[in-house]
Amino acid sequence: MSFLAKYDNAVQRNDSFVCVGLDPDMTKLPEHLLGTPNPMRAFLTDIVAATRDIACAYKPNFAFFGAQGLAGWEALQGTIDAIPQDLPIVLDFKAGDIGNTAEHYAAMAYRQLGVDAVTVNPLMGTDAIAPFLAYQNGCAFLLCLTSNPGSADVLRLNTERGALYEVLAQQAVHWSQTGPCGLVVGATHPDDLSTIRAIAPDLPILLPGIGAQGGEIRTVIQNGLNRNGSGILVNASRSILYASRGADFAEAARQAAETLRQMLNSAREKMRK
Amino acid sequence: MSFLAKYDNAVQRNDSFVCVGLDPDMTKLPEHLLGTPNPMRAFLTDIVAATRDIACAYKPNFAFFGAQGLAGWEALQGTIDAIPQDLPIVLDFKAGDIGNTAEHYAAMAYRQLGVDAVTVNPLMGTDAIAPFLAYQNGCAFLLCLTSNPGSADVLRLNTERGALYEVLAQQAVHWSQTGPCGLVVGATHPDDLSTIRAIAPDLPILLPGIGAQGGEIRTVIQNGLNRNGSGILVNASRSILYASRGADFAEAARQAAETLRQMLNSAREKMRK
Repeated sequence: MSFLAKYDNAVQRNDSFVCVGLDPDMTKLPEHLLGTPNPMRAFLTDIVAATRDIACAYKPNFAFFGAQGLAGWEALQGTIDAIPQDLPIVLDFKAGDIGNTAEHYAAMAYRQLGVDAVTVNPLMGTDAIAPFLAYQNGCAFLLCLTSNPGSADVLRLNTERGALYEVLAQQAVHWSQTGPCGLVVGATHPDDLSTIRAIAPDLPILLPGIGAQGGEIRTVIQNGLNRNGSGILVNASRSILYASRGADFAEAARQAAETLRQMLNSAREKMRK
Repeated sequence: MSFLAKYDNAVQRNDSFVCVGLDPDMTKLPEHLLGTPNPMRAFLTDIVAATRDIACAYKPNFAFFGAQGLAGWEALQGTIDAIPQDLPIVLDFKAGDIGNTAEHYAAMAYRQLGVDAVTVNPLMGTDAIAPFLAYQNGCAFLLCLTSNPGSADVLRLNTERGALYEVLAQQAVHWSQTGPCGLVVGATHPDDLSTIRAIAPDLPILLPGIGAQGGEIRTVIQNGLNRNGSGILVNASRSILYASRGADFAEAARQAAETLRQMLNSAREKMRK
């Protein structure tokens, strides 16, 4: 099943735009898990079990696994394997390299780890992206305007063809004729989101930055939805994962994800009226 | 010992600007190694032993290890451990993410794997780079103008402050006031290299694209060296690693690295006259 089919299914079934970001920070894990053989894996397996009927997708963030070496890789693979087959997984990796190398990153994501989509950095241009587009059941989420303050340094530069993030959105529409892709737009830039949605009416948009980074839910929904009232993945990581550090962490995570789901849906309902 | 001290030492001792790129492609390894417990690791350990008195640095390319999962991670760690302590290692990862995540990528590179430098994608701006600059003994090689044809798509866009790659070179000079950084410039763009060297006279420049990608040695030396006649790492991967697929692969790799070393040094000598 393709990424897009899994996403559409999950949005419908769980009535949700919540993407649960999996950023397992060893310094923030519940203490009672620290004695288990692989605390990250134990933690995330419980998080997934507690949110699988609330999420429209999961987004493991490679950095947090990579920082733990072999144990981190095992936790990443174990977590991916614990996510139900019909829920889409976006590997957050920001991959970007020359074609020959990009092929190996695509193989790592799609064949070795078995995810459904991957975040891709478009700085190196077409041939760095093509190996990801070749996976017709996947989806390459291309960085467009990221959630961090520093995004202005480069992504907002004015070019001969408009602001760089606008150029990247245009390019993504062009690249999407070759293979499935989407955009990454920080929820911290809700006003720019309407410009980007106008450039790319049909691309799925991954929106990080809602929870700990403070993005605004209402404007995100208003400006982000496509003409079918869908097409967004609103990611929250820390605000869900670390809602509690006690033995009730999974239940607290479920509550945080459910609250976000309801806030997003309520903003959508208000728009329809 | 810092990256820069190791680099300066190695350039002097081995009289070399050759950076040996470690891109272990499972489909190209010598057949007699395929039956060993970890063929990648066996292959690269021999490559390192055969070139350690010729190289000024090693550059493992994460994609090729990542595509092999756990075995790949073990090969990467084993290879890093097999490289002599006084030779610098650049992890080619093209890392780039928001600050909180970038901290974990920096920890993966510098603490978990124990490398001396890392390639970094600057698209996301200052706060995505700062966690790498915080390692004062490391070096963040920032993408400037990459070796691939697609580099023109984005990196050559004209902005309000010049071509994007020029802006990135200027930014790198600015960022280098905070912590050690360098630039990645494809050896396939020797003419642009003089522009970049003029903008960043003191930054080390990593130059991929000489071997399989066809960069020109003479112009690279002419335009790339700093005022001390140093400051470049000329990377070759495939042309060294796969010089032979037979039992003599390590000796053939040594010969290929030695030939490149001599060509670079001979171009430098001609410049001096």
